[in-house]
Amino acid sequence: MKIAVDAMGGDLAPQAIVEGVIQAASELPSEARIVLIGRESAIWDIFNQNNFTPTNVDVVHAEDVIEMGEHPTKALSQKPNSSIGIGFKLLKEKEVDIFCSAGNTGAMHVGALFSIKAIEGIIRPAIAGFVPQIDGSYSIMLDIGANADCKPEVLAQFGEIGSIFAQYTFQIDKPRVALMNIGEEEQKGSLTTQATYPLLKQNKRINFIGNIEGKDLFTNKADVIVTDGFTGNVLFKLGESFYEISKQRGFNDEFVDQTNYESIGGSSIIGVNGNVMIAHGISSPVAIKNMIGWAYKQVRSKAYLHIAQALN
Amino acid sequence: MKIAVDAMGGDLAPQAIVEGVIQAASELPSEARIVLIGRESAIWDIFNQNNFTPTNVDVVHAEDVIEMGEHPTKALSQKPNSSIGIGFKLLKEKEVDIFCSAGNTGAMHVGALFSIKAIEGIIRPAIAGFVPQIDGSYSIMLDIGANADCKPEVLAQFGEIGSIFAQYTFQIDKPRVALMNIGEEEQKGSLTTQATYPLLKQNKRINFIGNIEGKDLFTNKADVIVTDGFTGNVLFKLGESFYEISKQRGFNDEFVDQTNYESIGGSSIIGVNGNVMIAHGISSPVAIKNMIGWAYKQVRSKAYLHIAQALN
Repeated sequence: MKIAVDAMGGDLAPQAIVEGVIQAASELPSEARIVLIGRESAIWDIFNQNNFTPTNVDVVHAEDVIEMGEHPTKALSQKPNSSIGIGFKLLKEKEVDIFCSAGNTGAMHVGALFSIKAIEGIIRPAIAGFVPQIDGSYSIMLDIGANADCKPEVLAQFGEIGSIFAQYTFQIDKPRVALMNIGEEEQKGSLTTQATYPLLKQNKRINFIGNIEGKDLFTNKADVIVTDGFTGNVLFKLGESFYEISKQRGFNDEFVDQTNYESIGGSSIIGVNGNVMIAHGISSPVAIKNMIGWAYKQVRSKAYLHIAQALN
Repeated sequence: MKIAVDAMGGDLAPQAIVEGVIQAASELPSEARIVLIGRESAIWDIFNQNNFTPTNVDVVHAEDVIEMGEHPTKALSQKPNSSIGIGFKLLKEKEVDIFCSAGNTGAMHVGALFSIKAIEGIIRPAIAGFVPQIDGSYSIMLDIGANADCKPEVLAQFGEIGSIFAQYTFQIDKPRVALMNIGEEEQKGSLTTQATYPLLKQNKRINFIGNIEGKDLFTNKADVIVTDGFTGNVLFKLGESFYEISKQRGFNDEFVDQTNYESIGGSSIIGVNGNVMIAHGISSPVAIKNMIGWAYKQVRSKAYLHIAQALN
């Protein structure tokens, strides 16, 4: 298994990324190798600083970098030799099994759509965020930012692909799929959620449990939380702020610590023909290390192949 | 000043409501009286249980009750002698200065629109929720549930009426008005927030500070948080769940305690010709007591008159 990591993406790149890779390298199962993509000399400088011998890490040189503020489509076409450009080239050619980056999220999303492409039948790929639950498990919420505006049929499909993803990633039978809404009753909600509810209810391939509310995000009511990318994004970020508040206020709790973005380190783009994970721009070494751990699980789950099978 | 309270509204009514009123009665400034509306015999039973002599509480009998599940418009027209029906009649006739209820939210919203009516020029009245901030202050977020779908001009108006409400309720100059969004940059967001941003920016009567994100809900970035009733509702409920999580997990923090719905006890309907507060269905005596405290402040602020002046 080859896990590709963009060394140049993120506010603290390449330092934090390479340090995270060094930490991950010692913990990865022996069947996995990391492919680190970026400016070779910069990467080696950090290896040397850390007295690191990359026995299970390969370095692939990339001359260019797509910066955080760049326009995704333009940047990708103008910089084929950027770390993101090369990452998707390797992923498309199946030279690597997953591509992870803390860089320009738009470029990662567009790059996935242009290279490995959406699975046939997928209306819109989504970003699935991992949401810690109070009992120690995880749920996924999708979308958390790729599609700010979603039509009911798009949300309904999120329920289906999210269910398959959760089934194989968390290894659970019949994941509980819920619609994020402003009331539990079927008729509650915005025009969009009102129209989405019956579509989810009719779908016999998923275990739809109805609406959940904002207060249920962490309470282990659902394994898959369906919502548009606007709502998902604001909820996800508010949830992550819980950890920040605990640090500022000086209290400690094991569950609250799990709301720290670092504890998972990344989110998955699902609905595309391959494995892609994206991380926070501010990613620290620990965040990158943890993302690589989840990347390993994601490759093993083969979730994207199961999604493609289910749809075709 | 007369503060009307619906004794019959809420899951634990009339017991919890009347007990909350008893608690509030001993703390209210002498210029204020509470007008408790509901079944007289039930109310007196609870007074007697508590050995309470209502020196600053008047009881107004209401034969009927609008139940939580009833259709708002139907219930209001069929039950003019319900506690909600009578509360709005007294408010309209200026027999009381504010009407508060933990009952059927829809009936409270529709009752306000039918009796005291929207202020001329208001497109949609909104429910403004009080959001505790990490520095000990409060912000308001509107809408938190009355209008799940909002057009840009509605959101822009929320910015204006929210600013006036915050100015007079919190007694602050030039409240900072922010748009809840999925990125800080002007061009970020859903189609609706993208179209709302320039409307808020152009409005010289408010101090618009730009977009904020979900992570900023509690961090004292804004005094007025503008959002649609869907987003506001899910964020508000997730925020309130922080307190529930702290109780389940067994940690204590003064700020997290403020996220308990009981600490404010109610939300205000703004954009109507009078003062209306609504509370959680599950309201406890403490929640009701605290809502009455805020009701007193709201009446003194005369915010709704200032909104009417600004618009006309």
